[in-house]
Amino acid sequence: MRKIKVGITHGDINGIGYEVILKTFENPEMLELCTPIVYGSPKTATYHRKAFECSTNYIVKSSAREADENMLNIVNCFGEEEIKIDFGQSTPEAGKAAFASLERALDDYRKGNIDVLVTAPINKNNIQCEGFHFPGHTEYIEEKVGGGSKALMVLMNDSLRVALATTHIPISKVAGAISKDLIEEKIRILNQSLKRDFLIDNPRIAVLALNPHCGDGGLIGSEEQEIIIPTIEQLFAEGIRCFGPYAADGFFGSSNYTHFDAILAMYHDQGLAPFKALAMENGVNYTAGLPIVRTSPDHGTAYDIAGKGIAKEDSFRAAIYTAIDVARNRRTYDEAHSHPLKKQYYEKKDDSDKLKLDQVTDDNDLGLEL
Amino acid sequence: MRKIKVGITHGDINGIGYEVILKTFENPEMLELCTPIVYGSPKTATYHRKAFECSTNYIVKSSAREADENMLNIVNCFGEEEIKIDFGQSTPEAGKAAFASLERALDDYRKGNIDVLVTAPINKNNIQCEGFHFPGHTEYIEEKVGGGSKALMVLMNDSLRVALATTHIPISKVAGAISKDLIEEKIRILNQSLKRDFLIDNPRIAVLALNPHCGDGGLIGSEEQEIIIPTIEQLFAEGIRCFGPYAADGFFGSSNYTHFDAILAMYHDQGLAPFKALAMENGVNYTAGLPIVRTSPDHGTAYDIAGKGIAKEDSFRAAIYTAIDVARNRRTYDEAHSHPLKKQYYEKKDDSDKLKLDQVTDDNDLGLEL
Repeated sequence: MRKIKVGITHGDINGIGYEVILKTFENPEMLELCTPIVYGSPKTATYHRKAFECSTNYIVKSSAREADENMLNIVNCFGEEEIKIDFGQSTPEAGKAAFASLERALDDYRKGNIDVLVTAPINKNNIQCEGFHFPGHTEYIEEKVGGGSKALMVLMNDSLRVALATTHIPISKVAGAISKDLIEEKIRILNQSLKRDFLIDNPRIAVLALNPHCGDGGLIGSEEQEIIIPTIEQLFAEGIRCFGPYAADGFFGSSNYTHFDAILAMYHDQGLAPFKALAMENGVNYTAGLPIVRTSPDHGTAYDIAGKGIAKEDSFRAAIYTAIDVARNRRTYDEAHSHPLKKQYYEKKDDSDKLKLDQVTDDNDLGLEL
Repeated sequence: MRKIKVGITHGDINGIGYEVILKTFENPEMLELCTPIVYGSPKTATYHRKAFECSTNYIVKSSAREADENMLNIVNCFGEEEIKIDFGQSTPEAGKAAFASLERALDDYRKGNIDVLVTAPINKNNIQCEGFHFPGHTEYIEEKVGGGSKALMVLMNDSLRVALATTHIPISKVAGAISKDLIEEKIRILNQSLKRDFLIDNPRIAVLALNPHCGDGGLIGSEEQEIIIPTIEQLFAEGIRCFGPYAADGFFGSSNYTHFDAILAMYHDQGLAPFKALAMENGVNYTAGLPIVRTSPDHGTAYDIAGKGIAKEDSFRAAIYTAIDVARNRRTYDEAHSHPLKKQYYEKKDDSDKLKLDQVTDDNDLGLEL
């Protein structure tokens, strides 16, 4: 298997993006796993590297096609342009630089120059511009390279995967956004992602309730009975092993979550507050459902500690690992499913025959019959 | 200090109420801390005790006034009446029995026969009746013995206290319920409770945002900027040490919560899902803000394990401890505040004098001057 090319956007240059990228590749073993290609600015990287002790070396390239397999590559997206760095400040320059990095990376993804994408955190306010009117990376990437597929935001670590039915919308809009179509779509994407991206044959999915106490039989909201329960029942009857809905607090309190391969939460804080309380520093944001494999760390720009050298790179490193794992799993899955055995029995005989399998035949020619 | 009389309601008799009560008082040391008075049915208690191995003894009394200081007392609320027990089933009989226990306990509280109240879990569906149209204990107790005060639901353990601005309402109603008056009321109750109930002199309170990412500067909802931030600023200017708003997921992910004496969450699952994920089995539900001291375990009726003897009593025991601690703290606080020293200095001199304290006087009579 050839090494996977990991495209990396530098995110907001006034945050901790470069710090976690450089710290991650301080360990040379990372280069045995993948070929990293940072879409950024060598000058900016050097400025950051000087701000804290870091021995990571990198090589500057004008294009991802020229990437050195055994180095941290930086594709210069800015020529000789100087980009002003103000640690901890949200500036229009930083927004522009974040957007330029993302655009270049997606362009290279389309051309097949990178295999997977790992994004450092952006500031959702300063990146807004003519080309970017989205609540975040996930929605933008879905629009630009989703090819019509719908994205599903999944936060995960080694022991827990939490997917969100709704993401970056106000609480006032959450209940209105919960529909049968939405829940069905998200469960299907999650189920397929668990199979293809994580190679779990027959995944078990827990679905959380929207309302406290699962609606308490209708006393506290009716969405469980009207929308969520019928959807779970329909998909379960189809063979998708989805269960619930579970009241979110009791579910996380009872360690019930350890019995499932993934959890579908109804909204952002319901899923992510307990996830982050449990996941500590190695959470990864994975965008399921799209042709592109994209991950990011589960933290933000962290302006308050930018440039201080105290940011932890664990989550970013885990994001790289996850992207590599998913890309490999997809290869394995697609290979295994590319030449299915012909269903000879069903093709030769009508379905009713299978019911006769438990009959004992005198001449013991059951095998030949098949 | 005389022993505190703890009134205990038996909750739903088809759940694990009696099991956790009896297991808690299996340890005779509990009787050195308090005099427990269960409002229930001796026959039902015996039936439960037979269902699992438990050596707890109790004495039957017709009234709390006759309670034996060194025994687990059961006040018979049902005479010779037989109450049918169906482990794990929600029945009208169980609802009636839960309501009768609660009514008798509140009646005794009004008469001064018990000092504090600890409630075993009810089923919020079967307890609804002519006298009970409430989403739960908290709202009912506020109405019946609150004396016009407003209740604040607080989930706590030894290291974490999470209060809820809104409690048992559907998600669709949450944003509409968040107002300046509500947030102000809840912060004030929480601040006062931390002082009087937990003897924290100058408590630090963290306030969570309503929307994901704290509203991302208005991109995801405006309640932070319009309601929550101005309220925090106003109360902070008054001297209440409240901080925030904090995005719920990052707040619990960064261990930021360890820096505060309490957290005010905006709604049920936002506060309780991460709380229960972190608190494991010793969480306690404390009703702050009312004249009555009332606690309960943080679990429900647990029908699925009722009668099996596998319920854990840790949370119920912690609820008893908390009720006792709060009652004692209130005595201490009220005693300390009942005869304040007169502010002689300020009363004798004008305020500007205090600015002269750092002046060195020749005759060293600074002490006399004061």
